[in-house]
Amino acid sequence: MTASMLGHLDPDFLLVMDDVKEMLRLVFQTRNSVTLPISGTGTAGMEAAMVNVIERGDTVVVGSNGYFAQRMAEVARRCGATVYEVAFPYGSPVDPAAMKEEVSLHDKVKVIAVVHAETSTGVITPLAELGEIALDAGALLMVDAVTSLGGMQLRTDEWNIDVCYGGTQKCLACPPGLAPLTMSDRAVAMMESRKTQVQSFYLDLSQLRRYWHERAYHHTAPVTMVYALREGLRLLLEEGLEESFRRHELNAGALQAGLTAMGLEMAAQEGYRLAALTSIRVPEGVDEAAVRKYLMAKHNTEIGAGLGEFAGQVWRIGLMGYNSTASNVFHVLSILEEALSAQGFEVPIGASLASAQAFMTEGHAT
Amino acid sequence: MTASMLGHLDPDFLLVMDDVKEMLRLVFQTRNSVTLPISGTGTAGMEAAMVNVIERGDTVVVGSNGYFAQRMAEVARRCGATVYEVAFPYGSPVDPAAMKEEVSLHDKVKVIAVVHAETSTGVITPLAELGEIALDAGALLMVDAVTSLGGMQLRTDEWNIDVCYGGTQKCLACPPGLAPLTMSDRAVAMMESRKTQVQSFYLDLSQLRRYWHERAYHHTAPVTMVYALREGLRLLLEEGLEESFRRHELNAGALQAGLTAMGLEMAAQEGYRLAALTSIRVPEGVDEAAVRKYLMAKHNTEIGAGLGEFAGQVWRIGLMGYNSTASNVFHVLSILEEALSAQGFEVPIGASLASAQAFMTEGHAT
Repeated sequence: MTASMLGHLDPDFLLVMDDVKEMLRLVFQTRNSVTLPISGTGTAGMEAAMVNVIERGDTVVVGSNGYFAQRMAEVARRCGATVYEVAFPYGSPVDPAAMKEEVSLHDKVKVIAVVHAETSTGVITPLAELGEIALDAGALLMVDAVTSLGGMQLRTDEWNIDVCYGGTQKCLACPPGLAPLTMSDRAVAMMESRKTQVQSFYLDLSQLRRYWHERAYHHTAPVTMVYALREGLRLLLEEGLEESFRRHELNAGALQAGLTAMGLEMAAQEGYRLAALTSIRVPEGVDEAAVRKYLMAKHNTEIGAGLGEFAGQVWRIGLMGYNSTASNVFHVLSILEEALSAQGFEVPIGASLASAQAFMTEGHAT
Repeated sequence: MTASMLGHLDPDFLLVMDDVKEMLRLVFQTRNSVTLPISGTGTAGMEAAMVNVIERGDTVVVGSNGYFAQRMAEVARRCGATVYEVAFPYGSPVDPAAMKEEVSLHDKVKVIAVVHAETSTGVITPLAELGEIALDAGALLMVDAVTSLGGMQLRTDEWNIDVCYGGTQKCLACPPGLAPLTMSDRAVAMMESRKTQVQSFYLDLSQLRRYWHERAYHHTAPVTMVYALREGLRLLLEEGLEESFRRHELNAGALQAGLTAMGLEMAAQEGYRLAALTSIRVPEGVDEAAVRKYLMAKHNTEIGAGLGEFAGQVWRIGLMGYNSTASNVFHVLSILEEALSAQGFEVPIGASLASAQAFMTEGHAT
């Protein structure tokens, strides 16, 4: 980001844009022509995804298992959609069978929307089956990949995902500010056959793709953000996608082994636990805010509070991108142990670090 | 922007946010409580301004004298407004009398919208009289200050401006990425008495102000962009607003004196010429794109092409913020002279630099 500023239509900047589009396709594992970063944070990506495909009166079915899934439903409603939320408990994935049933109840579903990696609960929802359901129903599968993009397997084309967006500040390890988005040809065709104009000018993909492909002025791109994204993508691809996924899994597995050894309980259902973000139930009698404040004040380390239904009930520990390292695992385990002891929660000293270390070495819990 | 990343809810980042809000009030010359940067570029600021105050069926009167004013009309239409554009020729300001007459034709006008400094034409529209007209009509005055904020006089409170937004990459001299916005209590009250929800979640000011004031999570702010804005505002206030305005005027006056001595014609009406951006008519027989390409390829200097009705007819030279310097004036005059000569346009050698220098010394054209 410290490289010299270029004009947003400077020929040299256009080369940077080309690099970004090409590398985004590799990271999304897609050949979609419309693959570009939206000039806003993840929520802008969500809104861009919704606003471009939804028209007033369209039916949207949302798999609602966390705060960000609920946000998808809200954004869809603001686009004028009739939204059906299929509710699953916080901590559980979206169940494809329940989604299929809901979809079958409606005459014409335009969009099936789910969050791939629910940042509010630390849960993964498998997508391949949902892609089949959407295809069969003639609906678009829309996926929030804000926390999964670059940090775990995400096969946009193979899984029939039609609209997918991420954020730069999670597993891409850039500053927040952009929301990479990709859209299948099927979704583009639906967008092109809209009867009404997209209600947002800023997020109108028919104009954004002209800017990113034909260099037609639409808005002034956040130039330094695009530099950052280019470098983040370059570093990720230098490591390799599979290697990045493996690293996220190994470190998260070690963290979860350590937390379990500390006597803490995971908040996400087994088999669906996210590597980039681990959610833990706050033990009885422990002041959850006091623990977070202690870690921040004494160790300059931030862990997340619960969101939505999980407010006050869980902590959330992120190990994303650059931050997913063995030393961060040991660091957070040791300071959490200290903070919990200060709160009178009995911790078997050293057990968590030993378990984490064993996991790192063996590749699985002992 | 190279300062360490902070979490977007980190107590230390909240202090940075406080600084930004306070300095933005000084630069907008307002006491408005709702004064904050939108997490997107200038066009996002425009959309945030519109989408929060307009409901479907509202009447909006736009003073339409350039590309960005036309964009305001388009964004208002996408919000469901009935829009009346009062058209003025490119190169002219918005005439308050014509606006007053248009407003009087309608039962209830919700918003009167104008661009303060039309970047597409290089024209200033005086605002004080429009503020009176809006007050009398019970309408809100909405002002696009993308190119004026920080570079020329803009008295939000004194002129009764209700909604005003800018951009970071013009006279605030930061990278593009944020759109500072301020809203009067009258506009806030109108927003609070809406019958329908704001159609954009990302730009919903009722939520954004809770994030900027009460620290309630809404979206992840582009942290490094906020750092940049804080530093840009700090440097501007260190120089002083009045001193910045004077500098922009002096350098633009020198540029315009030099261009006139070169035999070129200004595209903006005399008395309403913008200091931050000077528009020049492309002389007969000169290939306008070839000149821009020459300047970029040979001298690494970008000047703007015409936009909208001015496409192919004018060049636009920006002298904004950090770039408004005497040496940039001499630089652009000398290379433009060279490029025009290469095109066979006869230029009186040295006259432009002499006129510019005289203006710098005397403070007015000789």
